[in-house]
Amino acid sequence: MKLKVYTDRMSQPSRAVIIFCKVNGIQFDEISIILSKRQQLSPEFKEINPLGKVPAIVDGRLKLFESHAILIYLALAFPSVLDHWYPNDLSKRAKIHSVLDWHHTNLRPGAAGYVLNTVLAPALGLPLDSQAAAKAENLLTKSLSTLETFWLKGNSKFLLGSNQPSIADLSLVCELVQLQVLEEKDRVKLLGPHKKVGEWIENTRKATMPHFDEVHEVLFKAKEKFEKQREMGTVAKPGIQSKM
Amino acid sequence: MKLKVYTDRMSQPSRAVIIFCKVNGIQFDEISIILSKRQQLSPEFKEINPLGKVPAIVDGRLKLFESHAILIYLALAFPSVLDHWYPNDLSKRAKIHSVLDWHHTNLRPGAAGYVLNTVLAPALGLPLDSQAAAKAENLLTKSLSTLETFWLKGNSKFLLGSNQPSIADLSLVCELVQLQVLEEKDRVKLLGPHKKVGEWIENTRKATMPHFDEVHEVLFKAKEKFEKQREMGTVAKPGIQSKM
Repeated sequence: MKLKVYTDRMSQPSRAVIIFCKVNGIQFDEISIILSKRQQLSPEFKEINPLGKVPAIVDGRLKLFESHAILIYLALAFPSVLDHWYPNDLSKRAKIHSVLDWHHTNLRPGAAGYVLNTVLAPALGLPLDSQAAAKAENLLTKSLSTLETFWLKGNSKFLLGSNQPSIADLSLVCELVQLQVLEEKDRVKLLGPHKKVGEWIENTRKATMPHFDEVHEVLFKAKEKFEKQREMGTVAKPGIQSKM
Repeated sequence: MKLKVYTDRMSQPSRAVIIFCKVNGIQFDEISIILSKRQQLSPEFKEINPLGKVPAIVDGRLKLFESHAILIYLALAFPSVLDHWYPNDLSKRAKIHSVLDWHHTNLRPGAAGYVLNTVLAPALGLPLDSQAAAKAENLLTKSLSTLETFWLKGNSKFLLGSNQPSIADLSLVCELVQLQVLEEKDRVKLLGPHKKVGEWIENTRKATMPHFDEVHEVLFKAKEKFEKQREMGTVAKPGIQSKM
């Protein structure tokens, strides 16, 4: 039975999993779970992931969620996945786990928290929380600086001194691409000082084309929508995200 | 060269790594990095982990931090570690990654955030933040409920339907044991409704004795200290933790 991948392409870890499958020639059926329509809470999807989160996969008898766990599983279970995505070498693999764990408590809450509380919240029927936005911005700024000076140290194209991408590059870059929906001045302020981060995002994009752009299309459309709303001086309203 | 493990036993992921080494007969030198004395920011420790966090390890040429990454590495690198800690079976391993990832964004910020903002903050020179405490309590309560009804579903002694502990049991239980420093009434309110969680903590403790109690000794002493302070109606003051 073919692998089933449950996603909302507006979710950055969903995009990472879809791109990974496509780049590695993994055959799969993509099942859309539209978060803005609360489809993740349906009894059908609760059978797949009782915690109601995307992405999730079903492979034979295995039901699995959490994008890092999914990426690792796919890398190990599908022979078409090349070693550089999740190296067999113990030390290299350990370093990938380390950056993925760091991501959970630094870059992810920073980026997702900032985007939610400056742009997305009204589209999800939530208030914009300026205090939470400031806290997230602080974490995001620190995380970008750590990426620039530590994780991307040296002259390699990808994280951890590698010249080929790993699942960590894909996961972290997909997290950062969501900053596209911010106001231009905010995005420039955040990313501008971090030249290596910008180059690395582009390296990861190039290494996963054409799938990278195709899977991000929904985000780029959302970006246009938010830009138009800003030009018109309106704010996003509940329900608007269902047309993204 | 013997494995070096850099820890502060007041840190729950440090405790998980030390217990894991001891239970599995891994020979190591433990190097104490006292967080309350800001030793994690010393130039010597920054050579080990530039991000200034414990636990961290050095094994040969590998420098590694993030406790989950460390536990996985040790399980793979040391032949004395039995399979149940980090099973070779792809599906079982995937589920362990899933629960470890879930931990990062649910149980960990819930438990650590609540303890910090109700008890520990003054001892670290920080203010107690009641709003942050309420937010963390909400996340912790939800996480405990998810543990009880989902991750500990069935009649097994450990997570994911297993009758032997994995690195996930150790990591999550060490996170929860820090609730010992709370006021009795708060701890009972949080843990009381979750019978399976209580049994699972005890199962994990028993499976890792005598190391579990020995490594938690510093926490139990801290608990006594906080209890005495409460009896005397005083609050913890900056610097007090250096004597824990």
